[in-house]
Amino acid sequence: MSAIPKEFLKKTAQLSEAVTRPIPGSEKVYVPGSRSDLRVPMRVVEQMSTAASFGAEENPPITVYDTSGQYTDPRADIDLLRGLPPLRKSWIDERGDSTELDGPSSEYGRQRLTDERLAVLRFEHVHKPRCANPGSNVTQMHYARRGIITPEMEFIAIRENLRLQEIKADPRYQSLLAQHKGHSFGARIPESVTPDFVRDEVAHGRAIIPANINHPELEPMIIGRNFLVKINTNIGNSAVTSSIEEEVEKMVWAVRWGSDTVMDLSTGKHIHETREWILRNSPVPIGTVPIYQALEKVDGKAEELTWEIFRDTLVEQAEQGVDYFTIHAGVRLPFVPLTARRVTGIVSRGGSILAKWCLAHHQESFLYTHFEEICEIMKAYDVSFSLGDGLRPGSIADANDEAQFAELKTLGELTQIAWSHDCQVMIEGPGHVPMQLIKENMDKELEDCFEAPFYTLGPLTTDIAPGYDHITSAIGAAQIGWYGTAMLCYVTPKEHLGLPDKQDVRDGIITYKIAAHAADLAKGHPGAQLRDNALSKARFEFRWQDQFNLSLDPDKAQEFHDQTLPKEAHKVAHFCSMCGPHFCSMRITQDVRDYAKQHGISDAQQALEEGMKDKAAEFKNRGSEIYQQA
Amino acid sequence: MSAIPKEFLKKTAQLSEAVTRPIPGSEKVYVPGSRSDLRVPMRVVEQMSTAASFGAEENPPITVYDTSGQYTDPRADIDLLRGLPPLRKSWIDERGDSTELDGPSSEYGRQRLTDERLAVLRFEHVHKPRCANPGSNVTQMHYARRGIITPEMEFIAIRENLRLQEIKADPRYQSLLAQHKGHSFGARIPESVTPDFVRDEVAHGRAIIPANINHPELEPMIIGRNFLVKINTNIGNSAVTSSIEEEVEKMVWAVRWGSDTVMDLSTGKHIHETREWILRNSPVPIGTVPIYQALEKVDGKAEELTWEIFRDTLVEQAEQGVDYFTIHAGVRLPFVPLTARRVTGIVSRGGSILAKWCLAHHQESFLYTHFEEICEIMKAYDVSFSLGDGLRPGSIADANDEAQFAELKTLGELTQIAWSHDCQVMIEGPGHVPMQLIKENMDKELEDCFEAPFYTLGPLTTDIAPGYDHITSAIGAAQIGWYGTAMLCYVTPKEHLGLPDKQDVRDGIITYKIAAHAADLAKGHPGAQLRDNALSKARFEFRWQDQFNLSLDPDKAQEFHDQTLPKEAHKVAHFCSMCGPHFCSMRITQDVRDYAKQHGISDAQQALEEGMKDKAAEFKNRGSEIYQQA
Repeated sequence: MSAIPKEFLKKTAQLSEAVTRPIPGSEKVYVPGSRSDLRVPMRVVEQMSTAASFGAEENPPITVYDTSGQYTDPRADIDLLRGLPPLRKSWIDERGDSTELDGPSSEYGRQRLTDERLAVLRFEHVHKPRCANPGSNVTQMHYARRGIITPEMEFIAIRENLRLQEIKADPRYQSLLAQHKGHSFGARIPESVTPDFVRDEVAHGRAIIPANINHPELEPMIIGRNFLVKINTNIGNSAVTSSIEEEVEKMVWAVRWGSDTVMDLSTGKHIHETREWILRNSPVPIGTVPIYQALEKVDGKAEELTWEIFRDTLVEQAEQGVDYFTIHAGVRLPFVPLTARRVTGIVSRGGSILAKWCLAHHQESFLYTHFEEICEIMKAYDVSFSLGDGLRPGSIADANDEAQFAELKTLGELTQIAWSHDCQVMIEGPGHVPMQLIKENMDKELEDCFEAPFYTLGPLTTDIAPGYDHITSAIGAAQIGWYGTAMLCYVTPKEHLGLPDKQDVRDGIITYKIAAHAADLAKGHPGAQLRDNALSKARFEFRWQDQFNLSLDPDKAQEFHDQTLPKEAHKVAHFCSMCGPHFCSMRITQDVRDYAKQHGISDAQQALEEGMKDKAAEFKNRGSEIYQQA
Repeated sequence: MSAIPKEFLKKTAQLSEAVTRPIPGSEKVYVPGSRSDLRVPMRVVEQMSTAASFGAEENPPITVYDTSGQYTDPRADIDLLRGLPPLRKSWIDERGDSTELDGPSSEYGRQRLTDERLAVLRFEHVHKPRCANPGSNVTQMHYARRGIITPEMEFIAIRENLRLQEIKADPRYQSLLAQHKGHSFGARIPESVTPDFVRDEVAHGRAIIPANINHPELEPMIIGRNFLVKINTNIGNSAVTSSIEEEVEKMVWAVRWGSDTVMDLSTGKHIHETREWILRNSPVPIGTVPIYQALEKVDGKAEELTWEIFRDTLVEQAEQGVDYFTIHAGVRLPFVPLTARRVTGIVSRGGSILAKWCLAHHQESFLYTHFEEICEIMKAYDVSFSLGDGLRPGSIADANDEAQFAELKTLGELTQIAWSHDCQVMIEGPGHVPMQLIKENMDKELEDCFEAPFYTLGPLTTDIAPGYDHITSAIGAAQIGWYGTAMLCYVTPKEHLGLPDKQDVRDGIITYKIAAHAADLAKGHPGAQLRDNALSKARFEFRWQDQFNLSLDPDKAQEFHDQTLPKEAHKVAHFCSMCGPHFCSMRITQDVRDYAKQHGISDAQQALEEGMKDKAAEFKNRGSEIYQQA
């Protein structure tokens, strides 16, 4: 046991102001559902009116998706020692298919709970774990397949719609609603998400709702290619020690910037306690890679891992409330040698642990051989599978190789086993893949894994830019998101080089929010373009503050603007630093509008057609001459 | 005339160490051509040997494209007061089709030269302008169409090849040469670039060599979709004053990070003098937007612009040595009203100047009506056209609209006129375009503009991330580069918000080098993947320093690594901060390799096939059951 900070409790009671102050220019609202305890959080950005020189009109408020939980609500009473209110508790209770246990079922969970030396580290109000009643199955997929619409599903339907139906009916939004036709590569995105659509997608395995019955604090969300593209942030201490409080603050920081889920990849001494603090305070689903903790339990010796140790770890974490587990059950013994000739071998940490085990024992891994037993655990708590891509390529050279695709096919087979237990499944993918090979990944995943949601790291589209891999990978992430990936795992600028600090986490998240939104636009997600249109209108009309407030990172936008034109007056100035006050492109458009009004656009269109005809004739002869010269 | 800094000359004599120190870990080399004055600069990154634990082998040096000119050559004698050596002077002289004039032909050029108040600002050794002899045409296209291979073309062939033929013949590179098949969307990229291939591409207008006979200092480069994708950096002072020395330093900074061309978009008081300093010291082609300077000459009143003022500006700049001009001749009167209903109207500065003029005079612009006279000027100096996209969309809402595509079609017509004069042409494009609409831009450009090279700004794939528009646009730039765009105009994080500082310029350039390289990989450019393979091998073998040196930004990579593992010993450590010394994914791969050697990969492949077969049978029945449940 390494040193435990004495002042821990006191310190964790306070998040820094940076992570809890309200997001500039917006207000938290809660859209009510069919029952009083179903209130869906969103953010509303109020806009200023358009100045007289641009036509003097009111600009309506814009509603945006919000993952930040209560932390950005100034009315909320945040107390990390107590955790967030368990908003799903009554929904889970009402289903009557699970029971509160007396204490942890896992051996390790009991050990940690009774170890007095850990008292100072332990979350104060550890709740009693809940487990499905014998013979019961508490997964959202199980309910969905039986035709049951859960409150979680209704919550998600409201959340995904972002009030679009209301907005469409409101004349103030008319000019903002215009949207390009998307190209969705076969995704079937509804005009309006109904609770039954959510249910149906979950029933067919095309979407998952990661929502462990032991994580009642979470605000339900969905991962599936017929919904908004989501992003994940990885946090967790590593060889370098970081304290529990830092990890909790990182989680709050991540959801503030828009992370839809958070994976806790901690590998340190107090993984169990850290996880409890994170879960009790997290409004988003938490994922883990249980093999990491199992490895800690055998002091890092992969070959000493056993099914029993792993099983106990799954139960331990499931009873704490982890919402999805990365399970690298696709790393099969015969696939391992396929990586021998790779440039970068096996780069997934989980993949290499499993590979090492398989080689040491010359056997298929216990994840593969005990997969049905894993399903039994998953369905007792509703932990979703994130079937791990232990053989993902770690370099452009290794992309789309036999090892990668052999594993993918196995993940599809495992998906069918999981589905036979009504367990929810998503499939992990990419890594390093050049652009021309990205689509093959998506196509194969849809086919081999029967449309289970795809969850990809990047992919990074080149290897030559360490220090900028949030960007090399955003290029790939936007594309694979467009093609159908349901959730994008972020990459920070520190990838391959070191551990991300808070600034790196923010950069990684915003970069991935961009990729996800670019994908939503390209797929033609209804209403996705509304925010772009509103921001661009604000930009055009020099409503600087609205432009900042509508952006993914209002703080950064304002900071950059202030660097060149710091004066407060410039926030309402009708020019910007790029052209200066003397000449302004945007102002000239007003002249154009006046002209168009005067002359009529239809005249112009006619002139255009005729002009084109003339020119075409004029240049025709020239053209043939030119080509003869060459 | 605003205040002129007295200490100007002394200060401009010194660039900061940051822009001139050699790029870490690489050496400048010059590959000789067929004549002694033809030496093509490249950078060579020497690598360390592989450690014994990874198989103890020598790693060959990697040659990379280098745009940084003499500034990064420690042997060079840099003197900004004198300018770079005019390496193309003898090539131009030998052609015997141009003559040195006694002085500037432009009225403005003469005024500035004789204005004593400007002496303190003026470049010391202003050269006499050179102009084509009467009846001569000095464009590279003109030579190309007559079957002449210029030294510029040979230089480019060597430059684009990056010694690939030598490398292919060298056994040390065998393991690094493996490359995925590209998908080039109809581009015809040769295995090896010959001087005659360069000539042929230029003759057919599919590529341009921007190389004004008055800019003999430049190291020739080519822009065309059958060559490596290039990037451009914009510099230039704006409403906020920046000094001449700052602009020269910015240019050197830009080429250091890999910018292939630089556009000087200055709009201040001393545009003419600034440009002279930049040109005399620039190893890359310089582009300008002459209408900006013309506008300064009429005190910013667009409607007072005349053909005569514009013409004089073209001659003035052509005689200084500007290599390409953005000419917004496609902004036709009938197209202007088509922008009236846009969300963001006309956002191109040049476009709005022209639109304002057209409206004020209710006439086609003088750029359009005098286009053939412009061609006469261009071919007398070999200034390339960059036909401006004055009506490019400034928001997602305005993408691919009638105004944009009407202008594009006109640019195609103008291309044919320019080609009838053997003038070189590239076409400017995009702006804000969502992903699903990007390819249409490329396809239309190729068709409407007869395969003239496309030069695009981004495109930005969403409007909602001011502060991160280098990223929103890199996503689009990588895609359009893949589809066939020949040069990408960079975007900095400050886009829409303010003026980029040096750090923003660096971020913008590296981001665009990533996009361009990702596109080269995807197109299957021969040898493009060599650098990725080398870097990944170095990464895998924990050759940290090689990884840094092979990266696009060695300084940043090293800096990030040092933040987590600052000790010098860690540069050779066989682990990294992500997993720590205790457990390491990459080390496990050594076990895999040993295992594969022991068991034979072919056995594994057989096992794999059989395993797959079994599983497929096993899950077949399950599968059908599952679907019945849903």
